[in-house]
Amino acid sequence: MPEFSPGLEGVVAAETAVSEVDGANGRLIYRGGYLIEDLAPVASYEEVAHLLWYGELPSKAQLDALRHQMAPARNLTDAACGALLASDPATTPMDILRTVVSAQGSSKTLAKPTLDEAIALTSVFPTIVAAAYRRAQGKDLVKPREDLGHAANLLWMMDGKEPGADRVRWLDTYLVLLADHGLNASTFTARVVASTGSDLTSCVVGAIGALKGPAHGGATFAARAMLDKIGSADNAEKWLTEAHARKERFAGFGHRVYRTYDPRAKIFRELAKVAAPELHRTAARTEEVALQILHEAHPERPNATNVDFWAAVVLTGAGIPKELFTCMFATSRVAGWTAHVLEALQDLRIIRPASVWVGPEPGKKPPALAAR
Amino acid sequence: MPEFSPGLEGVVAAETAVSEVDGANGRLIYRGGYLIEDLAPVASYEEVAHLLWYGELPSKAQLDALRHQMAPARNLTDAACGALLASDPATTPMDILRTVVSAQGSSKTLAKPTLDEAIALTSVFPTIVAAAYRRAQGKDLVKPREDLGHAANLLWMMDGKEPGADRVRWLDTYLVLLADHGLNASTFTARVVASTGSDLTSCVVGAIGALKGPAHGGATFAARAMLDKIGSADNAEKWLTEAHARKERFAGFGHRVYRTYDPRAKIFRELAKVAAPELHRTAARTEEVALQILHEAHPERPNATNVDFWAAVVLTGAGIPKELFTCMFATSRVAGWTAHVLEALQDLRIIRPASVWVGPEPGKKPPALAAR
Repeated sequence: MPEFSPGLEGVVAAETAVSEVDGANGRLIYRGGYLIEDLAPVASYEEVAHLLWYGELPSKAQLDALRHQMAPARNLTDAACGALLASDPATTPMDILRTVVSAQGSSKTLAKPTLDEAIALTSVFPTIVAAAYRRAQGKDLVKPREDLGHAANLLWMMDGKEPGADRVRWLDTYLVLLADHGLNASTFTARVVASTGSDLTSCVVGAIGALKGPAHGGATFAARAMLDKIGSADNAEKWLTEAHARKERFAGFGHRVYRTYDPRAKIFRELAKVAAPELHRTAARTEEVALQILHEAHPERPNATNVDFWAAVVLTGAGIPKELFTCMFATSRVAGWTAHVLEALQDLRIIRPASVWVGPEPGKKPPALAAR
Repeated sequence: MPEFSPGLEGVVAAETAVSEVDGANGRLIYRGGYLIEDLAPVASYEEVAHLLWYGELPSKAQLDALRHQMAPARNLTDAACGALLASDPATTPMDILRTVVSAQGSSKTLAKPTLDEAIALTSVFPTIVAAAYRRAQGKDLVKPREDLGHAANLLWMMDGKEPGADRVRWLDTYLVLLADHGLNASTFTARVVASTGSDLTSCVVGAIGALKGPAHGGATFAARAMLDKIGSADNAEKWLTEAHARKERFAGFGHRVYRTYDPRAKIFRELAKVAAPELHRTAARTEEVALQILHEAHPERPNATNVDFWAAVVLTGAGIPKELFTCMFATSRVAGWTAHVLEALQDLRIIRPASVWVGPEPGKKPPALAAR
């Protein structure tokens, strides 16, 4: 029996051509061999989703076909709409997303995951997220618009008015950068669910649940909440010094895989200068001081800023309230989840690890129990 | 980098005191060190759930307290009821379970998993399963009864009449035997979701999705469907020989961990004699012939009958339609899922394995893309 590796750190659980996190060199590689910094300035979310699903960036005709497939799939089924409207508007939006996606993808048979289903599920995420947002504010829902792209339509459904080109571009870049990231915990969840021969919706719903955790998708919210507490660049040193003395963890720093600056964080940091100049100043000073403190405390650790820290600033600039940050992460990552499941299908083997028994010696006899 | 082990076979992913599958010796050990064959004749599902959650079998007073906590938790919330009633009655019941459990466990905050929540979620499974069953038949729903035990109330809600003591005992034994089983794929899913700091409902909903797969919880249905095709003991040899010639897999044989007869299958086989005598005869002959054929084809493999094969016969005897078999599995295993999540909380570390890149050399430049 091999040694126990908590968190399966360093244990290889899959071979994949969907994406690769090259932690040593700070590179994120998307399917086909593209570096994230080459894609981010030029590709839209739809194009990147096409890349992850089909293995290649789309031609103009392919992109049009994908858009034509996605636009009508933005509508909720009756079952999904019913589940949405029955939910308490104060429910945390990730829970609404989990329930309504589950209802949307319900079926009368157990079907194998397909690319069409991947496209349909990805298309409907913005509809659910925007609906949860508007219901929480007591506002009427806004129907999706078929003439808008994925990011623009999401902002449209949130606000009920046409978004400016800059906001669309910032959100779209966010969606591109978060679309896949190796065997992160939510993607791994999707692959474990897929390994039993289950359906695509079950995989995606499981992944939503995993992403919700503060150690995963919830980290962007935590980073923004910390920046809110810090309030201004001038206050960063005082706040961080005191927080460090209280042994509080700094949100937005450290990553399991990267040993250097997260390449996505680098892109977000640049983008944040224009997307949210004031918050950028606070964040930049926060980063500077936090890295100093962390380096002094743990010189052996690579305490690099992670993607959540700067993503929080860019999402803020794009006008996304922090309560929706984790949902935005899900809205992006669903392309990766589904691409991984479709890849896993090619060689399905149930993922069933071993465990080590740490209970008492077996053979204890039960006492006399209450009659049944 | 260690070698890639497909399916994480032999990779230790957790230390646990909830249950242990001792595959070499054909033993299943529940928390506290009890062997399944010692518990099955004397313990009810509620007692075993108490054991898995609290680490000990309940006293009479503790059992009463647990029952008093479970009975009112059988009712659906408005959100769950709305999601249920909005679903198409022809939806596969596992999909309804996934959606309605998700709605039932929705909350306004991200809460850490608690024992109370584990009890509440476990309590409501029969309500959802019975409701899905009755809606599929176009019948009115039957409200839960607080005076009945877990198994009896489930049969009551399915049929709208008081079940006989035998059926209750058979179903209860089923629920006891399936309540936990080491790091099976659905339990592992729950632990991966938990590892991100997510909530208990997300863990359970993810596990439902994993259980649904035919290589996991769906196998009991497959075993019964095969027995239906065989039809009678006389036809077993002919059918199995032909199926083997067609290279069809026999449902209900083989297991990742057991190298000997599954101890649960042994108990079910005995119980089946009285619970479903006619189907028992067909199944016994099927088992005999199938093991012969499998042993001749693969003398190197331990082709033992697995739990699904004989569980299918006992569930049939208890009057459970095969469309609900996977739901019954979930109704039992939720105690184990939640016990594992609560155990995992004691030392939470995100489960994030590594992957091996099998895509092209990184650095490919994107072509000119369509304007955003």
